[in-house]
Amino acid sequence: MDRKERIILDDILNGDKIFYRNISVDNVIFGYHERELKVLLFKNTSQEKWLLPGGYVKKDETLEKAAHRVVRYRTNLKKLHLHQFFAFSNPERNKNTHFTPELLTTITGQKVTTDHWLLDNFISVAFFTLVDYYEVKPTGSFYAEECQWWDITNLPEMAFDHREIIDQALLSLRFFSHVSPIGKEMLPEKFTIPELQSLYETILGKKLDNRNFVKKMTNIGLIEKLDEKRNIGKHRSPFLYRFNQARYDALAKGEEFIVF
Amino acid sequence: MDRKERIILDDILNGDKIFYRNISVDNVIFGYHERELKVLLFKNTSQEKWLLPGGYVKKDETLEKAAHRVVRYRTNLKKLHLHQFFAFSNPERNKNTHFTPELLTTITGQKVTTDHWLLDNFISVAFFTLVDYYEVKPTGSFYAEECQWWDITNLPEMAFDHREIIDQALLSLRFFSHVSPIGKEMLPEKFTIPELQSLYETILGKKLDNRNFVKKMTNIGLIEKLDEKRNIGKHRSPFLYRFNQARYDALAKGEEFIVF
Repeated sequence: MDRKERIILDDILNGDKIFYRNISVDNVIFGYHERELKVLLFKNTSQEKWLLPGGYVKKDETLEKAAHRVVRYRTNLKKLHLHQFFAFSNPERNKNTHFTPELLTTITGQKVTTDHWLLDNFISVAFFTLVDYYEVKPTGSFYAEECQWWDITNLPEMAFDHREIIDQALLSLRFFSHVSPIGKEMLPEKFTIPELQSLYETILGKKLDNRNFVKKMTNIGLIEKLDEKRNIGKHRSPFLYRFNQARYDALAKGEEFIVF
Repeated sequence: MDRKERIILDDILNGDKIFYRNISVDNVIFGYHERELKVLLFKNTSQEKWLLPGGYVKKDETLEKAAHRVVRYRTNLKKLHLHQFFAFSNPERNKNTHFTPELLTTITGQKVTTDHWLLDNFISVAFFTLVDYYEVKPTGSFYAEECQWWDITNLPEMAFDHREIIDQALLSLRFFSHVSPIGKEMLPEKFTIPELQSLYETILGKKLDNRNFVKKMTNIGLIEKLDEKRNIGKHRSPFLYRFNQARYDALAKGEEFIVF
């Protein structure tokens, strides 16, 4: 048995001493790429269904720290802003786990009964986070796993209630985008107005009026026009903009609201 | 030992079979009375500090159902709209519990050790709910308890992190009031504009411009002017209004937003 296998074995057998019982975290990691909103999912190569990156919560850490640990592992990003949005608690939500007393007995070589901590139901506190698609290195864990981006409008079959968690995360993100600025994590430092508007339209799932959009963004002082243009073709060189950091931070604090 | 004492004893000894471990719910119950925002709190008569109405979560129920059960018990209201807003998980949050192995041993007459489920840390999922102050019958539980309303600007000393939970609930309520209509649960069926505006000002903790307020409320169709006035003094008889139910429901679904 190698070191990694020993760690797994120890977690299965003694996890109830390290982790809270009945509580897990799940993460909806949103990226933005070519006008599509993406979610980072993984699956075991031997399984059919895809999963949200999640994990258990150590007894000496907060939910936030546990979620952060998971997202960091999956993305290889250090600077992350997680948003806790809902705790999912359907008593049936874990009933399709592939863990059984028999399987755990086989894995551990010790008699595992139905009261084992891994066989209990888990209430999952879910977080969403916005990341820079281009910075992420999708990472499966050390046993055979695939990890990749999926377009939110074209998701694969998901395990447990993870599809519901994604749907709820998208609603929360839309809600959030109405009251707080978004974009800093998902756009390059300099961007054109159409690029910014596309991001908002993709997240909100609807077209926005061009003129109102620019007016709104400019009036609240969220963006600054630069003395610089991008050449995207003959006769097409739109001005570049960037976020005003101070205004962005003030708006993120909820002192004012952006509404479309 | 009477029936109630037997129930308590059984919960202490066997609660880990009935309830999830490490998970509780807490409720911030908001009422509105004479331009003050109130919170319903209780305390054991022998203790100093006040508490939010909370409880454990049965393994066969959702967090929502557990929270609903608690609020219903404390308020005697049947129709309730709870809003889950945050899970509090500081590993130190329960360290000032008055439960000790010695106390539990004394109460139960059985040897209780430090691994007892009641001595573990609890992550608490918090809900806020808006209720009609005049309809609530504040109710202590069957052992010696006081239960009463407190003005949010003049709270007593609170146990655990319950003050932090209230502060966060108020922020969530403010956030909520910007994107969803409020008031149906907290105002009489017919109300004057100053009454509605006072409610919003009390919740938001700031003065609102009179003219903008009426304009906003009327433009979005949330309220309807009635052919009826209230006499509140010589030469003072403001028109009465009521909520437009269909618009209220549509706005509550988040299809549009109200922003001040």
